[in-house]
Amino acid sequence: MVGSMTVSVNSTPPVDLYANGTVHHAELLPASDDDHGGIIVDMKEPMDPDIFHARLRASLSLWGQQGKKGIWIKLPIAMVNLVETAVKKGFQYHHAEPNYLMLVYWIPDTPSTIPANASHRVCVGAIVLNDKREVLVVQEKSGIFQGKGVWKIPTGVVDEGEEIFMAAVREVKEETAIDTEFLEILAFRQWHKSFFEKSDLVFLCMLRPLSFDIQKQELEIEAAQWMPFEEYAAQPVAQNHELFTYIIDLCLAKVDRDYIGFSPQPLRPTLNDQISYLYSNARDLNQSSSADRQ
Amino acid sequence: MVGSMTVSVNSTPPVDLYANGTVHHAELLPASDDDHGGIIVDMKEPMDPDIFHARLRASLSLWGQQGKKGIWIKLPIAMVNLVETAVKKGFQYHHAEPNYLMLVYWIPDTPSTIPANASHRVCVGAIVLNDKREVLVVQEKSGIFQGKGVWKIPTGVVDEGEEIFMAAVREVKEETAIDTEFLEILAFRQWHKSFFEKSDLVFLCMLRPLSFDIQKQELEIEAAQWMPFEEYAAQPVAQNHELFTYIIDLCLAKVDRDYIGFSPQPLRPTLNDQISYLYSNARDLNQSSSADRQ
Repeated sequence: MVGSMTVSVNSTPPVDLYANGTVHHAELLPASDDDHGGIIVDMKEPMDPDIFHARLRASLSLWGQQGKKGIWIKLPIAMVNLVETAVKKGFQYHHAEPNYLMLVYWIPDTPSTIPANASHRVCVGAIVLNDKREVLVVQEKSGIFQGKGVWKIPTGVVDEGEEIFMAAVREVKEETAIDTEFLEILAFRQWHKSFFEKSDLVFLCMLRPLSFDIQKQELEIEAAQWMPFEEYAAQPVAQNHELFTYIIDLCLAKVDRDYIGFSPQPLRPTLNDQISYLYSNARDLNQSSSADRQ
Repeated sequence: MVGSMTVSVNSTPPVDLYANGTVHHAELLPASDDDHGGIIVDMKEPMDPDIFHARLRASLSLWGQQGKKGIWIKLPIAMVNLVETAVKKGFQYHHAEPNYLMLVYWIPDTPSTIPANASHRVCVGAIVLNDKREVLVVQEKSGIFQGKGVWKIPTGVVDEGEEIFMAAVREVKEETAIDTEFLEILAFRQWHKSFFEKSDLVFLCMLRPLSFDIQKQELEIEAAQWMPFEEYAAQPVAQNHELFTYIIDLCLAKVDRDYIGFSPQPLRPTLNDQISYLYSNARDLNQSSSADRQ
């Protein structure tokens, strides 16, 4: 993205805003091209709404002539005074974070190919089982089980940019101070409309404890303990909540049989030096041929 | 949520807005309690910004006295004229959809436990292989491979509320008109910062074709065909893009060996009658004992 107040990527001159015979090169909004024939406006400096309106009008006119498609405006929350102007010019909301709002406008007559907003939170549930067949469980201070005496496995939300397996290890450490080694994702499910209109994608993970002294986190956790697996499975709540049933089934399949889930394998860094992981059935994938198994 | 303009869930009277000796029961904003000690304001009717400001101030004062925590305001885009007022009272953006903006304010002095916004889009890549070891491939009209002659598998974004396996079947049908049966998720990976600050969680799926006559979708697809698997794997792009390499490896593991991925199994409907699916290694999970395999 360019930092100046004119669009360095556009070769045609800005439009004449006043059309009164003299040439007024209306300033445009700070912007850059995206990879899909669109424009990203990146507002960094405060602007008077009237000036914003004039520049937005001039910019849209030019971009329309140029055949641009989706126009994005990222407004920091400090520029909340410009939101109404953008919406009155036809922009819709696309997404928002605590400190900014992203708006978008589709110029052409063709159907919009504006990509969807983020739709999911990614969550982890962590099964930590020790050698005595005890599972690490907590009681939470809020949420649906608050005050009901229900013992549940540690759960949490994967942070933006965080790997799933690292989030499972982190959540267990935060809630109970137990260090763990990640083993596998045993299963996952979607949970629609978990949070307003959004969905949760919940990964059920198996971890091996590396330490055993529990120190519960004060803010969110009421109690934490190692509980015999049979006692965990016998809680009345386990009869009514299908996820408890599946946690129990998957746990037994993993411990007593040789259930294989998905485990993370590092991929080569991509162009932007991002290290990422492929989650797959590593045992099956690493077999050299079917002869090994049959 | 309540529909009236007063908070039916609050038992204490509204505060005296003017404090001039006479009692003015300032009207509050339409709101209901949430499950976490907070309040959800649901604005359905247009409101003058000055009236909104007075009611917001009165409401926040009362909610503060009541020990409420997170205060949510959902503003339809038609009420964009109220956004600036809310932000100036200390509200932050939480998330946005095309037609509304959700703002939030944390009242207590304790650390905020406001839940994270949605962070991910869920995407599918669909490997459709026929009995002649031909894979269904497309060339896209936009995106990073536009105009480069790269043949790729159909991909797409899972709609809000849609199941992953249904999205894979739908995307193949939309792009190529081919009907398919879903088999398995072979693997998945995260792709951070794929779209502004958000991540994609990409599920690589295996499907069996049920029809064979391709009719490409005109808007997004440049070309589509059945391509011999070896030809697909031999494309120069496959040497440089690790995901191509893994698609090829997983595909061979599935077809030539007995690689087992995750498959969806329906769960009992939940309290809100939602049918959902658990994705797991169904072969291992459904084994009655380890004796079956050893």
